[in-house]
Amino acid sequence: MTLAAIAAEAGVSLATVSKVLNGRADVSAATRERLEEHLRRNGYTRRNASQRSEYIELVFHELEPSWSVAVIEGVEEVADAAGLSVVLSVSGDRHSPASDWIDGVLRRRPLAVVLVFSDIPPRYREKLRSRGIPFVILDPAGDPAPDVPSVGSANWSGGLAATRHLIELGHTRIAAITGPEDMMCSLARVDGYRSAMNAAGLEIDPDHIRFGDFLPGEGERHGAELLASPNPPTAIFAGSDLQALGVIAAAAARGLSVPRDLSVVGYDDIALAKWMSPQLTTVHQPLRRMGEEAARLALRIADGEQADTMRMDLATHLIVRGSTAPPA
Amino acid sequence: MTLAAIAAEAGVSLATVSKVLNGRADVSAATRERLEEHLRRNGYTRRNASQRSEYIELVFHELEPSWSVAVIEGVEEVADAAGLSVVLSVSGDRHSPASDWIDGVLRRRPLAVVLVFSDIPPRYREKLRSRGIPFVILDPAGDPAPDVPSVGSANWSGGLAATRHLIELGHTRIAAITGPEDMMCSLARVDGYRSAMNAAGLEIDPDHIRFGDFLPGEGERHGAELLASPNPPTAIFAGSDLQALGVIAAAAARGLSVPRDLSVVGYDDIALAKWMSPQLTTVHQPLRRMGEEAARLALRIADGEQADTMRMDLATHLIVRGSTAPPA
Repeated sequence: MTLAAIAAEAGVSLATVSKVLNGRADVSAATRERLEEHLRRNGYTRRNASQRSEYIELVFHELEPSWSVAVIEGVEEVADAAGLSVVLSVSGDRHSPASDWIDGVLRRRPLAVVLVFSDIPPRYREKLRSRGIPFVILDPAGDPAPDVPSVGSANWSGGLAATRHLIELGHTRIAAITGPEDMMCSLARVDGYRSAMNAAGLEIDPDHIRFGDFLPGEGERHGAELLASPNPPTAIFAGSDLQALGVIAAAAARGLSVPRDLSVVGYDDIALAKWMSPQLTTVHQPLRRMGEEAARLALRIADGEQADTMRMDLATHLIVRGSTAPPA
Repeated sequence: MTLAAIAAEAGVSLATVSKVLNGRADVSAATRERLEEHLRRNGYTRRNASQRSEYIELVFHELEPSWSVAVIEGVEEVADAAGLSVVLSVSGDRHSPASDWIDGVLRRRPLAVVLVFSDIPPRYREKLRSRGIPFVILDPAGDPAPDVPSVGSANWSGGLAATRHLIELGHTRIAAITGPEDMMCSLARVDGYRSAMNAAGLEIDPDHIRFGDFLPGEGERHGAELLASPNPPTAIFAGSDLQALGVIAAAAARGLSVPRDLSVVGYDDIALAKWMSPQLTTVHQPLRRMGEEAARLALRIADGEQADTMRMDLATHLIVRGSTAPPA
């Protein structure tokens, strides 16, 4: 169906259709809404934009220094090799970019979009689809629809490897602190922990599973509570290296030394993990490669290639350093 | 002088002039060179671009996680408030962006450019000026020309405050590790150290002043050498928080405890400084505000405002935490 036919069907001018497609502001909300509905119902997809965009858009809901730079570097590298530039947006929360973002991206018309850690509501997906702007989600917060292309990492295996390592050292009272309950990566990591504990025949104290965010403050809070509890763990698997820092601070505040009195495993392997004292045992997550693969997948879709797999999980692996030891 | 006149003077078509102005590739290097020379000689500045750009371009020569994200956030905030997006480039080294960057930026025609930590050679400055693309350098590596707008911070005062703090604790054998010798911020910090030592009548062992990069590895190398020397310092002022981490690792490797056996002061106050064990005493550098001010200054120049001051230094201040104590 041509744009002219859709314009006629919706009872608006072709100029208005063009404005809506390009995210311009001077069309009433009601008209936009109606036209979006017509575009959606007719399955319209813009095919040949007049000029090929020179941009990939990379969207974060927050810039966390320790891991976001690795992702940016990965996307930059692929963009650069393709002669493209990266537009960096910070918008919304992990459930969705903010509503003004979607109008901005329609105006900017990037060649492709990489969203980090967000979900993308169906109405935004529809808008991007009808404009022919492909998108890929990097490590989606929620459970994306099967047709949403995404790149993640092996979170469950990471949780399993971290916990197995602690069990092999001889720990039996092992706690896990993970991220928010509504993020798939948090759930997968803690499920890996559960499976390792179950496989070893170890009981899990229900108080030993904690949800938080991925920041140091939550690591410190949960760490302090766990260490003060009647059944304190001798080892803690933290959901991120930042949380692990908080756990180590909580241990230090109680006069406990890591790894002598408490073993701590982090997650991510941020650049500073090997510069901490003690050096942090952690699960390496290939953040830079995840950025590369997400950008590559987005560009392949932009080139009209049919992605044979819409979901790619990169491997994680345990890096043993100085923050873990047999229990005292 | 009009473009047509310049085209006639240079003996090329107006279309060729337009291609060169917009960084298109299909003009010979010799012709471009000649035309640039005519543009420069005639002091040509593009005035009214056909469409106002929606982008600020932010250029790093490297993305160092610990401090680059704060700068990005500052630039993002100002761009967002102005309804602009940020194009992020990683290019070149601290002496200059790479040569393919300048063609890219002429093609992208951003509203303004913020360069982090780089110098910008006169030939690039001239190209940006003739296209009417203003730029601001954030904490320039070298000594920029007086007419180059730049935003920095009070490096000398920071070095002075860090060293005074150590002197007031009772240290007399104090070493300083700073950044590269060809960066103004390195020199200013170490000069602040020198002034504090001189003012207190303390002698400086020439071996106690070290230059490196700002990364942990150099902190560890210099730290290990200093601690193994015949005249080991009881306190070290590191040029960055990352270097301080390396120094602390070097101390730990010798079985020394911070701050009991060695006091360490960092520089930057990265987000993780307060999550280290011990928490890091450091000089707070307002990186996010530096990003904001650089973007604001660039936009003011883009709006045709005459900047009354081309160089702005934001204040730094010492934050005393747990890594410093009186000498044993």
